[in-house]
Amino acid sequence: MRDLLQCRDDIDSIDRQILDLLEKRMDVAKDIAEYKLSHNQGITDTSREHIKLQKLREQAKEHGLPASYISDLYKLIMKNTCSVEQQHIIAKANSSSIVRDTSIAHLGSTGSYSHVAAMRFLDGFKGKITASGCDTFEQIVGQVETGKVEFGVLPIENSSSGSINDVLDVIQNTTASIVGELFVPIDHAILGNTTAKLEDITDVYSHPQPVAQCSNWLKDILPKATIHYTKATSEAMNIIREMNSPHHVAIGSHMAASYYNLVPIVDNIANNTNNYTRFIVISMTPIVVPSTIPAKTSLSFGVQKYTPGSLISVLNEISKHQMNVTKIISRPRLDKNKETWEEIFFADIEGNLSSPEMQDILEDVKPFTSSLKVLGCYPNSEEQNKQH
Amino acid sequence: MRDLLQCRDDIDSIDRQILDLLEKRMDVAKDIAEYKLSHNQGITDTSREHIKLQKLREQAKEHGLPASYISDLYKLIMKNTCSVEQQHIIAKANSSSIVRDTSIAHLGSTGSYSHVAAMRFLDGFKGKITASGCDTFEQIVGQVETGKVEFGVLPIENSSSGSINDVLDVIQNTTASIVGELFVPIDHAILGNTTAKLEDITDVYSHPQPVAQCSNWLKDILPKATIHYTKATSEAMNIIREMNSPHHVAIGSHMAASYYNLVPIVDNIANNTNNYTRFIVISMTPIVVPSTIPAKTSLSFGVQKYTPGSLISVLNEISKHQMNVTKIISRPRLDKNKETWEEIFFADIEGNLSSPEMQDILEDVKPFTSSLKVLGCYPNSEEQNKQH
Repeated sequence: MRDLLQCRDDIDSIDRQILDLLEKRMDVAKDIAEYKLSHNQGITDTSREHIKLQKLREQAKEHGLPASYISDLYKLIMKNTCSVEQQHIIAKANSSSIVRDTSIAHLGSTGSYSHVAAMRFLDGFKGKITASGCDTFEQIVGQVETGKVEFGVLPIENSSSGSINDVLDVIQNTTASIVGELFVPIDHAILGNTTAKLEDITDVYSHPQPVAQCSNWLKDILPKATIHYTKATSEAMNIIREMNSPHHVAIGSHMAASYYNLVPIVDNIANNTNNYTRFIVISMTPIVVPSTIPAKTSLSFGVQKYTPGSLISVLNEISKHQMNVTKIISRPRLDKNKETWEEIFFADIEGNLSSPEMQDILEDVKPFTSSLKVLGCYPNSEEQNKQH
Repeated sequence: MRDLLQCRDDIDSIDRQILDLLEKRMDVAKDIAEYKLSHNQGITDTSREHIKLQKLREQAKEHGLPASYISDLYKLIMKNTCSVEQQHIIAKANSSSIVRDTSIAHLGSTGSYSHVAAMRFLDGFKGKITASGCDTFEQIVGQVETGKVEFGVLPIENSSSGSINDVLDVIQNTTASIVGELFVPIDHAILGNTTAKLEDITDVYSHPQPVAQCSNWLKDILPKATIHYTKATSEAMNIIREMNSPHHVAIGSHMAASYYNLVPIVDNIANNTNNYTRFIVISMTPIVVPSTIPAKTSLSFGVQKYTPGSLISVLNEISKHQMNVTKIISRPRLDKNKETWEEIFFADIEGNLSSPEMQDILEDVKPFTSSLKVLGCYPNSEEQNKQH
């Protein structure tokens, strides 16, 4: 019989070779992206993907590997390849590159959901990444506007609690543009040291919000545990790492565990397990989204207050051009120069800012709006998220 | 610039090499399984997995690959490796092998959820698999009992609609044993030919049940489409494949699409998207689950009718041995020899039939039961499912 350590060395060596091949595969994907860019072709080709998956299922059988395993694995590989191709095409179209140093500002410290979102956004970048934790949304926007960082990431809405008004206010007033969006699952987990076991847990550390969001699980599974409140989940994770005890655990983001070298003991313990936060990324340099990539354009506008039906007229103009509004929200804003307050609308439209249709819309809605601002045009991540 | 076809050839060649490596990795996993079996070690080692993932994240960066991508990919690879090790250990402990021909009976025809479950159960087997579609649960059990097939797969409960009484009845009376369980997502999707597009759909084919289960999506997205009812989803998928039209689609299982060479146009369209069916697998040869693998034991029993508190006494005995009951359901059964009906209880216990604790339980509950049958002991798939 072979020795366990020897087997594990073999596994490690195989894994290094797999990573080499995945790197090569990524390089070819970039060549494909070049080709698609110059031939104006879309990135996803459902029928080719389907044929490829069918072939892989057959090859899996020849290799004695479970077909559903290989099919699941390649769906992930293809999804990632698409997003790399997309990143590459966007960078190229903007005379930029993903092989360079960059910087990003986010709310909270390492391991906060905003930090996780920032790292996800820059996941494809090859170069030094400087992440800058901030205390307020204004600080994040300030860092972007003054050029201290290239990107800022802001949580704009949550699938349970809705829009985040403070962020709507800062993006309404900033000179920066939205250049990206991403959906991050709120994946509360019990995080501990490698020796921690569910049955040994006596103390749980976290911010009051995650504790409330995981109340059912805590009541059912750990009714006797002592709860300790911390200023942030990152603080809780830090405490647990330092303690290095099998009895003390934190509630925090599953994705953040690796920053604190913690292990997820139990996954998905939130009362509502299907909870996402949508983040937007802002930058002083607006991006051009090539026409082959599904785009979203965000606008904010005020309507002619004393003209009845102004909002419906704006929406009609958008609808006339066959464009889909994925989000609309209004928010009262006290105008300092007037005695009454004004209602500001935020709308996301599935469409490219540089398309003739969107340009027409911007022209056609003018008579019905008192103010109109393009917040940005960026790749539409909704589809990717739905598939996930 | 490189040609698209040449790039795709490169991708195909890289993918063949990746499959080769995954096959080798699987072989090493079997050696590890051998080692663990002879050293009585558990399969999952959370802390080693964690260290390995950390290392892979670092290696990913060195390879210029997104860390979260590699981490997601390897979670899938490790999960599959564990299930292969498990299959290998179980086969070995039962002096069997997964390298052999086998056969399985299921409800409905190719592409039914039961067929998908059957194929999933045998996914690791290397040899010829004969799948036999049946019209009734009795037929499935009959094929197993008469030795026409080795395995039979039966849907035992659904996360929305609950237990399936007819199946409880047949497993109560069969001489076959439960040897496995699996959780299959009900993943209704719009399936079409490679040329089909959402905006072109005019006609939808499916069984009335999936149509009802997807009513919201159909009303919102395809209000004008004509619905055609078929005897089974497999019939609908067959019709669509034969038609080969971009306007006609079927509602069917996403996982089943490949059997009909259909493409999922839209995923997860059911009103309730978190819907699972739990299947059990029966065989005339009960299996021994090695102690290192988490096991579940299913029992059925009647209680002493005229002794108050018999059921609670049975549950008390189980609880005394620190074992967890994951499911209990009672079902009235008309006893042909008596004028009154009898209540039969079905219980699933997290524990191994061959453990001293379970043997004690079986002895200790006898005074409170009028009948007691061990339905089977099999690997507990619940954990795997939760993680998914």
